[in-house]
Amino acid sequence: MAASSTFSLSQALLSRTLTHHRSSSTSHQDRLASPFLKSQFPTRLAIQRRHVVPRSTVRAAAVETLDKTDTTLVEQSVNTIRFLAIDAVEKANSGHPGLPMGCAPMGHILYDEVMRYNPKNPYWFNRDRFVLSAGHGCMLQYALLHLAGYDSVKEEDLKSFRQWGSKTPGHPENFETTGIEVTTGPLGQGIANAVGLALAEKHLAARYNKPDSEIVDHYTYVILGDGCQMEGIANEACSLAGHWGLGKLIAFYDDNHISIDGDTEIAFTESVDTRFEGLGWHVIWVKNGNTGYDEIRAAIKEAKAVKDKPTLIKVTTTIGYGSPNKANSYSVHGSALGAKEVDATRKNLGWPYEPFHVPEDVKKHWSRHVPEGAALEAEWNAKFAEYEKKYKEEATEFKSIITGELPADWDKALPTYTPESPADATRNLSQQCLNALANVLPGLLGGSADLASSNMTLLKMFGDFQKNTPEERNVRFGVREHGMGAICNGIGLHSPGLIPYCATFFVFTDYMRAAMRISALCEAGVIYVMTHDSVGLGEDGPTHQPIEHLASFRAMPNILMLRPADGNETAGAYKVAVVNRKRPSVLALSRQKLPQLPGTSIEGVEKGGYTITDNSSGNKPDVILIGTGSELEIAAKAGDELRKEGKTVRVVSFVSWELFDEQSDAYKESVLPAAVSARVSIEAGSTFGWEKIVGSKGKAIGIDRFGASAPAGKIYKEFGITVEAVIAAAKALC
Amino acid sequence: MAASSTFSLSQALLSRTLTHHRSSSTSHQDRLASPFLKSQFPTRLAIQRRHVVPRSTVRAAAVETLDKTDTTLVEQSVNTIRFLAIDAVEKANSGHPGLPMGCAPMGHILYDEVMRYNPKNPYWFNRDRFVLSAGHGCMLQYALLHLAGYDSVKEEDLKSFRQWGSKTPGHPENFETTGIEVTTGPLGQGIANAVGLALAEKHLAARYNKPDSEIVDHYTYVILGDGCQMEGIANEACSLAGHWGLGKLIAFYDDNHISIDGDTEIAFTESVDTRFEGLGWHVIWVKNGNTGYDEIRAAIKEAKAVKDKPTLIKVTTTIGYGSPNKANSYSVHGSALGAKEVDATRKNLGWPYEPFHVPEDVKKHWSRHVPEGAALEAEWNAKFAEYEKKYKEEATEFKSIITGELPADWDKALPTYTPESPADATRNLSQQCLNALANVLPGLLGGSADLASSNMTLLKMFGDFQKNTPEERNVRFGVREHGMGAICNGIGLHSPGLIPYCATFFVFTDYMRAAMRISALCEAGVIYVMTHDSVGLGEDGPTHQPIEHLASFRAMPNILMLRPADGNETAGAYKVAVVNRKRPSVLALSRQKLPQLPGTSIEGVEKGGYTITDNSSGNKPDVILIGTGSELEIAAKAGDELRKEGKTVRVVSFVSWELFDEQSDAYKESVLPAAVSARVSIEAGSTFGWEKIVGSKGKAIGIDRFGASAPAGKIYKEFGITVEAVIAAAKALC
Repeated sequence: MAASSTFSLSQALLSRTLTHHRSSSTSHQDRLASPFLKSQFPTRLAIQRRHVVPRSTVRAAAVETLDKTDTTLVEQSVNTIRFLAIDAVEKANSGHPGLPMGCAPMGHILYDEVMRYNPKNPYWFNRDRFVLSAGHGCMLQYALLHLAGYDSVKEEDLKSFRQWGSKTPGHPENFETTGIEVTTGPLGQGIANAVGLALAEKHLAARYNKPDSEIVDHYTYVILGDGCQMEGIANEACSLAGHWGLGKLIAFYDDNHISIDGDTEIAFTESVDTRFEGLGWHVIWVKNGNTGYDEIRAAIKEAKAVKDKPTLIKVTTTIGYGSPNKANSYSVHGSALGAKEVDATRKNLGWPYEPFHVPEDVKKHWSRHVPEGAALEAEWNAKFAEYEKKYKEEATEFKSIITGELPADWDKALPTYTPESPADATRNLSQQCLNALANVLPGLLGGSADLASSNMTLLKMFGDFQKNTPEERNVRFGVREHGMGAICNGIGLHSPGLIPYCATFFVFTDYMRAAMRISALCEAGVIYVMTHDSVGLGEDGPTHQPIEHLASFRAMPNILMLRPADGNETAGAYKVAVVNRKRPSVLALSRQKLPQLPGTSIEGVEKGGYTITDNSSGNKPDVILIGTGSELEIAAKAGDELRKEGKTVRVVSFVSWELFDEQSDAYKESVLPAAVSARVSIEAGSTFGWEKIVGSKGKAIGIDRFGASAPAGKIYKEFGITVEAVIAAAKALC
Repeated sequence: MAASSTFSLSQALLSRTLTHHRSSSTSHQDRLASPFLKSQFPTRLAIQRRHVVPRSTVRAAAVETLDKTDTTLVEQSVNTIRFLAIDAVEKANSGHPGLPMGCAPMGHILYDEVMRYNPKNPYWFNRDRFVLSAGHGCMLQYALLHLAGYDSVKEEDLKSFRQWGSKTPGHPENFETTGIEVTTGPLGQGIANAVGLALAEKHLAARYNKPDSEIVDHYTYVILGDGCQMEGIANEACSLAGHWGLGKLIAFYDDNHISIDGDTEIAFTESVDTRFEGLGWHVIWVKNGNTGYDEIRAAIKEAKAVKDKPTLIKVTTTIGYGSPNKANSYSVHGSALGAKEVDATRKNLGWPYEPFHVPEDVKKHWSRHVPEGAALEAEWNAKFAEYEKKYKEEATEFKSIITGELPADWDKALPTYTPESPADATRNLSQQCLNALANVLPGLLGGSADLASSNMTLLKMFGDFQKNTPEERNVRFGVREHGMGAICNGIGLHSPGLIPYCATFFVFTDYMRAAMRISALCEAGVIYVMTHDSVGLGEDGPTHQPIEHLASFRAMPNILMLRPADGNETAGAYKVAVVNRKRPSVLALSRQKLPQLPGTSIEGVEKGGYTITDNSSGNKPDVILIGTGSELEIAAKAGDELRKEGKTVRVVSFVSWELFDEQSDAYKESVLPAAVSARVSIEAGSTFGWEKIVGSKGKAIGIDRFGASAPAGKIYKEFGITVEAVIAAAKALC
């Protein structure tokens, strides 16, 4: 520590020198003229800079004076953030120091000056939400959580950055680290999640706030980078945010002009400002994001004043700010600086401390957040107690949403059916379930990507969630599947009792698969209502007909793939989907009418696979016929025919492989006895994976080619998805 | 026909009445005030119209006079297009009449007045390309191809619209219908394909045109709708089109304010014009797309004059134009009009003819396209003959690109390796292949979604394809995976000898899966270079670690999933990928170093699965160990250990399941003899599907959970992807 102090003194001089140097080289022309900077472009082309942006030089010095003014303290704090990131990446020899170094000023202002949160209860309902959409820069957020006093990120956690079992993984993961709201890293997801968080706030505020008591009132802040901006999902979500007028969504665009491949000029020369104006956002430009603290503060103030539009604050920064040889280059984006450059950066920024050190002043300064956060929560709790007295009914509902406790007997609302009930498409039966559940689950809300009338997702008792009617529960996502999925992740992670559902044609899960995978990973219990689930959709043809999609989700971890066959199974699928709040569910539903089958049940669905009919005894049928969804009817009919010919036949519905896998061995044996190898499966999709169920000696009937444009019945016949095919396969086996 | 004529006369009167009616109700206020129109909004909300657009009333009449002026002929032609669409949809009782009815004017002008093509040789190289991005409106294009004289769409084809085996499927499919350039329907894909087509033109023009001979010179036209505009992929691709300055890309935005869920006001209120200006496009607004033929013509002229930017022509139209009761509503989007409304539309538009009738005048007018097209091609052929004489070398290369004939012995350029060659990551070995192939395959071009230095995709002898250096072959896609895939589909379908490749981390195939599926469906031989193919990427953690991705592509039809284990296998994977011009290939490549294994070979890869080492005889090893990619090394090491203990062990590389499936039964038996049930597979991914290979008695070692953030070696150990695990599993089986 003595050595540090000495170093500190020498730094004071160095800093002054650097300050001087900076003022002499801030001009844009100088920067471009520097041969050092030119060498940063890994492209052979001389490219013309389109946005002439007065960014400060890389050789900046942050410390202007050693007087302990507020500014110095802020700069100390900002440099603490920078070096915690630098040191953690260095120790791991892996990670992304560039963003935290450039975004530390806005990070500091947000967590130290602007945001309302309680470090000791990261789940406090009314906290401001923060999303680091540029998730690779996660050390920024870990450093901020650490300074703010969150228990999830202690010094030892910073020191185990990116190591096995640590709470500081390589990208922010809400399921690993309390204080992290969502899981980011795959670019563009975070900003879309944030749109969902802001939607949830606006919706709940409209439903539950009273003129005398605003119990829902928080902001959603985001930092996103050039990478997020390039992703289509970000445009989708931001178009919706503009449409919905999400005034409490404030996004900081880290405009550092560097992405992994070098200067963004090689692939990204659009005017982001103009685009966002087109999307209906308020746009502010902070020209000096490196040291312009007051500019950043003013921008946030202005953003808060604009209540009917989300705000994009474009903050021009220098990636890797402070690193004398690597700042403003792609080399600081995703690799440790290296010991030599860490030293040089310490010198450059006047940072005399050993790795992971938080100066006492900084520590002291930040220490107020623990008591302040506790006070904020206590104040809110008192407010809510008042609210509860006055608005008993609303308070009960609201508590269910913020705790995630489902109302008693909610599942009694689910419809049941008998074989005499009329045949119907499972997409219609799904709408019956959704409408039944919306009455008893206050947190159920959602919609479709412009296919509400095909997916059958409208809640008939509610209107549309729109800018001026945010209390309504039908969300109109437009043709934006990817944004829709990620927005639902945000809604689901906002409050445990919010149950978002979203819909499109099953084949278009391909458009939103990245968001669905994040649902599975981040434990967001989104319900994916996926209709038109096979070639049974008919004439729209192969671009619209899923083939491999069932298999592709069965292979994905922590997601439930459910393909119900009729009304009872659809109700069962919804029961499973609602119960599984930490696991998303995909419901594959038919366009075409299906009969109500004997033997189907909600309880059966909960087991994933179960016998619907059987004329055998002793758990030894001649053959087991296995179907899912619309093909269970075919299996059942084939079973009837075979029984007429004297066979003993078990017909099994295999509605969810994942749930069946979770059953006891005894139960599995009771459905699929090892001794019976004569097994035939039928499903209008890829046979990939079915060997596991039918065994090496069984037969899987399915479709291992693309579909075709024709009436559904014709396709089924031509593709051999028929009763006759099942019977023939069964006879060949028994 | 006599009856038709009578009807025609009465229509003349009706038309005049309607013309009068129209002039009295064109005002915007009137339209909004109409209770009829209000009922079209399927939302409960009263929504405010943001763009006050002077669209013409739905009760328009197209025929202003019966004099056979040019205008009348154009209107006759436009109505022919409308009614061919109406009649085909009606006969199929399935399809989308609304777009063809609204877009018939621009469709007519494009195919009859603007585009250069040869109906009798739809593959003529220098044709203008047309893409109907709003593919559901395919009857527009079928009608146009029919009128223009393409053999692929005869009257009987129009009459078998959407039927089994027809050339007129429910969405445009290039592999079914000559004259269709790409496969559209999934929204946003088409506009991105068009960017690829325009890129290809710009690239080839820059490489092969000479001051005295412009042999590459065509436009790419697109029609896209509101749905396409909402999709993120469209924004990605259009951002790149603006960046690249694709001046010969002209996109018509069918601004009809209706999508499936109703008025676009419920979900899409952004300013598309402003956004496209931000993206660097030239934007023109045609306010009357219904009857403003001269406006449309003028817009195209203006667009052609702007040579350094792509142009968006926003054409405000009325969906279902001409239908008195359904125009301007979602009900005309995706369903047949119904007999009654078809009659009413015939009356409204003064169309006396029977279904599918093309009036003689119209037929005669369009008949010139066959001789004109032949002349255009002949002229070009003559020009190319001249070119060939002067520029022999370029002509040879160019012919290889336009015919798709690969240069002789191209595959000799592929590198080979011995077990003594240094260990290397397959991503690096991939770069060696790409660079070797770029020297011998003139049509190879591509790049990465901002991960060139991680995916190792740069062609070292070339610069970047950019606005001012379009002759170069490294394409910088930015962080736009989905757009990248679809752009590559466009490149690949532009000319048979163009071989596009594109790259990102394997996990981010989730972002571009919809485009990859279309590659497979539309037979575009895109090479997907997917690195960081397992938890072996280490610290970036589960958001970046693929698990289910191998399985998800193995389940997809017509796509080759290849996971090479070392240098020879990487070379083999490239050989397969290049040869398969009608089937895309996905190469899963390691981030981490791998040894060059004994026994691997290009020939082995071509068979999909093959034995690399074996100490058994009589095709009866004690155990078969099966690995792919980075885990083949583990299988090989386990084999060595087991052999030391006296076992006979076969080690099999299973680099491509699809290719193995295509081998003869005898070959399959020689690799995986039915009698040997002791089989162990190891792959650092989902075990889903492996039962097919290892059988019910075998053991599949893999990862059926999400990954983790930690150094790669640690993850492999913790997840049990180890030599020890293979040995233990093998011993349990034999």
